[in-house]
Amino acid sequence: MSILVVGSVAFDTIATPSGRVENILGGAATYFSLAASYFTEVRLVAVVGEDFTGLHEAVLKDHGVDTRGIERAEGKTFRWGGQYLDNLNEAKTDFTELNVFEKFQPRIPKEYADTQFLFLANIHPTLQTAVRREMNGVRLTGGDTMNFWIQGTPQELAETLKLVNVLLINDTEVKMLADEKNLLRASRKVLTMGPQALVVKHGEYGATIFFREGAFGIGKHPFRAPALPIEEVKDPTGAGDSFGGGFMGYIASQGEINREVLKRALFYGGVMGSFAVERFGTERLQNLTREEIDARFQIFRELTHLE
Amino acid sequence: MSILVVGSVAFDTIATPSGRVENILGGAATYFSLAASYFTEVRLVAVVGEDFTGLHEAVLKDHGVDTRGIERAEGKTFRWGGQYLDNLNEAKTDFTELNVFEKFQPRIPKEYADTQFLFLANIHPTLQTAVRREMNGVRLTGGDTMNFWIQGTPQELAETLKLVNVLLINDTEVKMLADEKNLLRASRKVLTMGPQALVVKHGEYGATIFFREGAFGIGKHPFRAPALPIEEVKDPTGAGDSFGGGFMGYIASQGEINREVLKRALFYGGVMGSFAVERFGTERLQNLTREEIDARFQIFRELTHLE
Repeated sequence: MSILVVGSVAFDTIATPSGRVENILGGAATYFSLAASYFTEVRLVAVVGEDFTGLHEAVLKDHGVDTRGIERAEGKTFRWGGQYLDNLNEAKTDFTELNVFEKFQPRIPKEYADTQFLFLANIHPTLQTAVRREMNGVRLTGGDTMNFWIQGTPQELAETLKLVNVLLINDTEVKMLADEKNLLRASRKVLTMGPQALVVKHGEYGATIFFREGAFGIGKHPFRAPALPIEEVKDPTGAGDSFGGGFMGYIASQGEINREVLKRALFYGGVMGSFAVERFGTERLQNLTREEIDARFQIFRELTHLE
Repeated sequence: MSILVVGSVAFDTIATPSGRVENILGGAATYFSLAASYFTEVRLVAVVGEDFTGLHEAVLKDHGVDTRGIERAEGKTFRWGGQYLDNLNEAKTDFTELNVFEKFQPRIPKEYADTQFLFLANIHPTLQTAVRREMNGVRLTGGDTMNFWIQGTPQELAETLKLVNVLLINDTEVKMLADEKNLLRASRKVLTMGPQALVVKHGEYGATIFFREGAFGIGKHPFRAPALPIEEVKDPTGAGDSFGGGFMGYIASQGEINREVLKRALFYGGVMGSFAVERFGTERLQNLTREEIDARFQIFRELTHLE
């Protein structure tokens, strides 16, 4: 079934120990869309500027992404520059030019009205809430956020969280959101804020999903998907968004939504994140096959599988 | 089969957000011995001072640990003081008093000569090498080290590593030892230094075992054991040593040594580490049952098990 993602499309300038690239196609919604496209039909709502060409759009269209929701505004596309020269786990931002993204007001094409799955990528929580209210018929909503909104717009974010079924954030963000240093206690607290499940992304160590009691089935314990150690991380940009695309895309491709589906989705999220970092930008995500994805899924599974 | 551990016995003064304790029984060899005692017969070689009483020794003897290798020297036992007030993942050392440990020369009782498994806890690599040479008939040697020896005595450590079958260190140490920031490449390099297997401890994220090609069986990939998020980490002291005790103790309890045994051992290591941190010092390790251990093993297994 189809999934709608609302978020940023950007041009990134990135420096890592493996090299430097300028103004390549990026943005959370781009990574998410490409990763999810291997599992299900993807619809995209975003804003771009006059510098976004048909060639850029073709990257998405070639993967079947429905781009009718991409609004073209006067001016330049959102641009971000960052480097990972000292630490591959955390970007140092060099510059952020919001450009057309500053006044982004998501507009959902009427053709998207029947979408069953929704992902609210990392944008202002007020916009997330508006989109979620408009898409009131969806079966499942996933969402992302970041420290900037957790600290800057906590009340707006609290409203969004009430409408999100599965929140996907990292260790630092869950602890900040809950104001609690212990991951398990922080996760329990976040699960009282709205979401029925919380996916905590641990970067190179994989991810853990925590369930609100009784949500998506029975069980006392969280579930953890590991990540394979990778020989060469060329560019960590978009790993978390690719994780989200694999996770949500797999769920949307399944008939039922239960804990077993969410567990396998957690593995597929890790798989897509691990591909994303192997090349700069979206290069690796553009050139995958479902067979490669499933082969790595098996490796991830064997990574922790006891006879 | 029995296992001999050579390492420190200490009195620790520890402050964490959960409280403060003074001069409680600790030291790497103590945590290791108690954790391993649930799996196999443990023999201990260490040095203590006149302040080490029969009550302290009883903690070990009550778990069947053979304490004939504990040498009593004039003076005080090794003392360490540290705090985890800001960060439960890393201790800030307040003081280190080596005392009798400064002149420690491990003496192996002749009754220990038939020991089949050896663990060289974190002591001067020259002492580790001497013990390993003396125990030349062992089936498997595990070893630990730390940044202090990696940077301070690299040549001595290189000699030790040639004699160690399984090295157990953490992420930071493996990267420092290999002078390489990428974990996978660092691990491959360490596996050229002597060990046939390398266990990298990731703290709250579990541990990964890397195998030299062809060692302990066939397979291309490493194996990762996750760790359950714990609600209250009271005192992280000794978690890594308890991990080592569970890991090595389980291996020593098995007839064969192959990859499946080492994988299960990795889970048991994580289980023992997770118990250790639930109480101050060795309290939790003193009061366990094998049933509790196996129940948590099952939880760890289910934590990443896909149907």
